[in-house]
Amino acid sequence: MTERFDLYYWPGLQGRGEFPRLVLEAAEASYRDMGRLAESDGGGVPAMMRILRTGLHGRIPFAPPFLVQGERLVAQAAEISAWLGERLGLAPDREDDRLFARTIALTTADLVAEAHDTHHPVAAGLFYEDQKPEALRRAEAFRRERMPKFLGWYERLLAANPSGVLAGGRLAHADLGLFQVVEGLRYAFPRRMAVLEGDHPRLVALCERVAAHPPVARYLASSRRIAFNEDGVFRRYPELDGD
Amino acid sequence: MTERFDLYYWPGLQGRGEFPRLVLEAAEASYRDMGRLAESDGGGVPAMMRILRTGLHGRIPFAPPFLVQGERLVAQAAEISAWLGERLGLAPDREDDRLFARTIALTTADLVAEAHDTHHPVAAGLFYEDQKPEALRRAEAFRRERMPKFLGWYERLLAANPSGVLAGGRLAHADLGLFQVVEGLRYAFPRRMAVLEGDHPRLVALCERVAAHPPVARYLASSRRIAFNEDGVFRRYPELDGD
Repeated sequence: MTERFDLYYWPGLQGRGEFPRLVLEAAEASYRDMGRLAESDGGGVPAMMRILRTGLHGRIPFAPPFLVQGERLVAQAAEISAWLGERLGLAPDREDDRLFARTIALTTADLVAEAHDTHHPVAAGLFYEDQKPEALRRAEAFRRERMPKFLGWYERLLAANPSGVLAGGRLAHADLGLFQVVEGLRYAFPRRMAVLEGDHPRLVALCERVAAHPPVARYLASSRRIAFNEDGVFRRYPELDGD
Repeated sequence: MTERFDLYYWPGLQGRGEFPRLVLEAAEASYRDMGRLAESDGGGVPAMMRILRTGLHGRIPFAPPFLVQGERLVAQAAEISAWLGERLGLAPDREDDRLFARTIALTTADLVAEAHDTHHPVAAGLFYEDQKPEALRRAEAFRRERMPKFLGWYERLLAANPSGVLAGGRLAHADLGLFQVVEGLRYAFPRRMAVLEGDHPRLVALCERVAAHPPVARYLASSRRIAFNEDGVFRRYPELDGD
């Protein structure tokens, strides 16, 4: 595999960029993390902003993350992840399983958006502090209804598939996405997750399997893995984790 | 094209099901609208709930809409639309354009989710009346920041493509999705849209072109097109449209 991918995302946070980054790392692909590359090497935020402003070959992404490879420009974390997965051996073999793996990846993106909106329920352009009452209400509903609904769905998929992955017979981008969202929920809602994980043994086992996948394990131990922080999608605001 | 598609969605509302439905209609595909089919013919809400509960060939959708075709089960409006579009001649020819059309479809799905959250900013499981103060705040930010940002993005894409569509050289699923979201925004935010449309002439022209596409025009004039209403994603609550 000699083709090279350029991933564009904000430096300093995992955010939605972590989903395609995990696929690139798990596949040991050749890629450049453009937001973290020196400006003198054509990287950095200015390079990203340039493409957001003027596009590339008439293709303008709405927001990061986006991936550039030759004439191609793909945005949307789930689409980048699925497309990379299918290209790099991290997707099911069968077409119907691939299609369902995409369905899972997009549903995970919905869960990520809902997790984000627990701290930004009014507007992404406002500070958390300026939408805290709304955040407390939204987070409560998220913890009580949405987290069990999503996690229960993954668990049911795993119960229906003897191979221990979400779709098809081998580890794929959808499993990496599940790992990432679970890690994020563990960071943002540690108390709630401690309660819920006991009811979702297959999900927990799959997350362990992803973390132990050698290229993923090496990546997680490297300095390329940015720590979770309060600039990302998953934020640890203890008041949003309930009592 | 003799293959038949079964689309599952709630009867009585356009909602997210309208995105794949428009692709099926625009392609004059053979499909069954399962939620609206008589229970005696294997349709209705019970048939949909059965698949949501137990899945099909181990594939369990998280939520409607979903599409069944043979062994395949696809959920997520944008993924169903893109997959159908690529199969039924409503996608660009070139692979890089197809990929970008998918990016657009997923971004439109984000806009739809944000439009939904203007009336349900706290929890989908609560009534609008129980989250009205939050809705007023979220809708204001949506009208002021998000609507111009999304509509401006589509307009820039159209300015960059001489063929007058969002990606590639012919009408595709991404254009149908834009038409549907614009129709929804016109329904939910008529005052705001009246102001914004003047700044987005290419977007308005593309929506007219979609509406005039003969199979779409026939569909829109038929009883199969459900009217917008306050059960759907786009709801006309005048207080959310500002003054």
